[in-house]
Amino acid sequence: MPDDNMENVHMVTCTAPVNIAVVKYWGKRDEDLILPINSSLSVTLHQDQLKTTTTVSTSKSFREDRLWLNGKEEDISQPRLQSCLREIRRLARKRRNDDDPDSDSTSLSHKVHICSINNFPTAAGLASSAAGFACLVYTLAQAFGVEGELSAVARQGSGSACRSMYGGFVQWIMGQQLDGKDSLAQQVEPETHWPELRILVLVVSAERKPVGSTSGMQTSVQTSCLLKHRAESVVPGRMVAMIDAVRRKDFTAFAELTMKDSNQFHATCLDTYPPIFYLNSVSHQVINMVHRYNQHYGETRVAYTFDAGPNAVIFTLQQHVPDFTQAVRHFFPPETNGGEFVKGLPVPQTDISAELKQAIGLEPMPTGISYIISTKAGPGPCVVKDPTQHLLGPIGLPKYTVRHHAQEGANGVNHKIVANM
Amino acid sequence: MPDDNMENVHMVTCTAPVNIAVVKYWGKRDEDLILPINSSLSVTLHQDQLKTTTTVSTSKSFREDRLWLNGKEEDISQPRLQSCLREIRRLARKRRNDDDPDSDSTSLSHKVHICSINNFPTAAGLASSAAGFACLVYTLAQAFGVEGELSAVARQGSGSACRSMYGGFVQWIMGQQLDGKDSLAQQVEPETHWPELRILVLVVSAERKPVGSTSGMQTSVQTSCLLKHRAESVVPGRMVAMIDAVRRKDFTAFAELTMKDSNQFHATCLDTYPPIFYLNSVSHQVINMVHRYNQHYGETRVAYTFDAGPNAVIFTLQQHVPDFTQAVRHFFPPETNGGEFVKGLPVPQTDISAELKQAIGLEPMPTGISYIISTKAGPGPCVVKDPTQHLLGPIGLPKYTVRHHAQEGANGVNHKIVANM
Repeated sequence: MPDDNMENVHMVTCTAPVNIAVVKYWGKRDEDLILPINSSLSVTLHQDQLKTTTTVSTSKSFREDRLWLNGKEEDISQPRLQSCLREIRRLARKRRNDDDPDSDSTSLSHKVHICSINNFPTAAGLASSAAGFACLVYTLAQAFGVEGELSAVARQGSGSACRSMYGGFVQWIMGQQLDGKDSLAQQVEPETHWPELRILVLVVSAERKPVGSTSGMQTSVQTSCLLKHRAESVVPGRMVAMIDAVRRKDFTAFAELTMKDSNQFHATCLDTYPPIFYLNSVSHQVINMVHRYNQHYGETRVAYTFDAGPNAVIFTLQQHVPDFTQAVRHFFPPETNGGEFVKGLPVPQTDISAELKQAIGLEPMPTGISYIISTKAGPGPCVVKDPTQHLLGPIGLPKYTVRHHAQEGANGVNHKIVANM
Repeated sequence: MPDDNMENVHMVTCTAPVNIAVVKYWGKRDEDLILPINSSLSVTLHQDQLKTTTTVSTSKSFREDRLWLNGKEEDISQPRLQSCLREIRRLARKRRNDDDPDSDSTSLSHKVHICSINNFPTAAGLASSAAGFACLVYTLAQAFGVEGELSAVARQGSGSACRSMYGGFVQWIMGQQLDGKDSLAQQVEPETHWPELRILVLVVSAERKPVGSTSGMQTSVQTSCLLKHRAESVVPGRMVAMIDAVRRKDFTAFAELTMKDSNQFHATCLDTYPPIFYLNSVSHQVINMVHRYNQHYGETRVAYTFDAGPNAVIFTLQQHVPDFTQAVRHFFPPETNGGEFVKGLPVPQTDISAELKQAIGLEPMPTGISYIISTKAGPGPCVVKDPTQHLLGPIGLPKYTVRHHAQEGANGVNHKIVANM
């Protein structure tokens, strides 16, 4: 429920998580409604390591809807933001018309100010739009007193955002209807279901920004006959098998299907014309390393998955984290000292055995991986109760904005976020 | 027809070409007979640049079948060599039993000595086994007086060798029969059909040997559902379209289908479990460069294709060779001086325009490409009439053998071929 502030500025702040797909979403059947050509399944990452925080304030005194992302004002007129705002206002109006006695008093005619930040660098190449739109929709819903199914609204901001509306293990059911009303996210199991599961994000030092996923998947749908086959004939069976593996906590089945599905997604990118490459030589080395690591131990202890970029996301079980992390450290010697290489959940340092080194037998790639974020499955969006955490000040303007550096870098504007008050 | 030499050593020498597939062969339905899961189509490269030369001698005095490859004696008992020898002897016997008056007098009980060399480095990663087995089968057939359809024999040495039995544009029809008798190569058009077509082999300086094609395609057949779909549902239509493009000399259609089929083959390698990577960062850069090159000119002037390794084979028309070669030289600055960078058919040097440089806009990769072999479509296997060209001396032993260096390199044995006489 929004706080009442002076000058009738209502304010609410929420957080939402990043998710990583283990059965991949790639390709839309409807670009406007963001309806996918296949179902997908993801694990929600813990917000202690990766989250978006969004504050929404509403006030009679606001002249227009405004948005600040990571400290910089952005154009709120972009269609996907407008879809989310329109849908939440429509649901709020519907609720009021249904004469719900709990209906919120916030006037639907009030404009909103929205301020959103990530606690991880955008440069990390993690799908920040999923957490961002999930957080936006969840926070707007709180501000306007909308309850119930919200994943279909988040989906219209960014497809994979619908999966960030739940914690744990989440499926996005593609649905069949033309209006997309049955294209929804659903929790398969909560984050408490598989406490031993651990997730390591290996952030690859990439030279250039790859093809964006929106235009990439458009081209794939138009040109890849393998993608069509995958969506129609391969994914349905994989969804069943993946849900089963998650429910049974069968790590081997989960891991192998995760790797196969990541590879098949990247295969369809290569079958796109012109082809799209998201994996670079560091990604290839991670893939080879994981297979040789598992082969050395005679069991599947570790799995990789890659989204639309070179970063690897690793799934493993708690007991294997120190050994595997040490292997990563050996085959991708870090630039910084060892202590800063791993962020997030602490990982005890161990030694790598000579046998493992030899079994993997790859040429080390110094500084190929910038750092590791160590995390686990986590909950869905949450309301932040502490009013000192609001990102907007009492008159509805950001507490923090971006200050441009005098010197601009070759690749764009360098900026840092500075306190306004 | 074999020469008669002293001591009743019959000797015949032939040459055979390399071929490069534009609709790719990947996957066998029968490992022993080498029957493919789909048809394929290739261009035979000119032997002035790339060829295998093989001498076969037969003599009553030979105690056993023996084989020398590139100056080094090899084990002739390997199954695929034995298949070819057995098949040729069977056909020779059949011919004699059919009471053919032209039947050769060479006794079928005589043992053979075989000596074979390539005029290109094996390290170039060009499919030397295709030229090698085509040459072996063609030369054995000459030695034993066997005529007629030989591609089914060559196929049993190495699948793609059947396509090296013809010049120009060649299809390998997959066939349906269990015994493989209808799995044959056929010339679609001769090498004279499209005189403007040019071929550039961009030899990439690769660090390590990739997964071999025999084991690679086995794993793909076992694990890639995209490969199954490709073979059954995609390739049949592509064969029709490719033959049509070749017949009409429609470069745009030929080029685009060539690129798409190369990409799809590599996509199925990535869909293999564990995945197989043949393309490296240099290959990726060649692919990006070709697409941007074509986009700059607003037409498809250049196509790439990649086999089971990182080397690019480029198809273009004669008039575009100098400009494209200069672009390669710019984006892959050669280690050696410019004159030695291009081998084979001469390429006039030109300048690269500032507009093209900017339109391609990639970061140059120094020494990523070792050299270019400039060639065109060429004829099938030929008999070498000049007896001084025999690789075996009068008593049936190689004129040249390998001498091992005192110092061995880290990656294996360094050797050079030295004259024995």
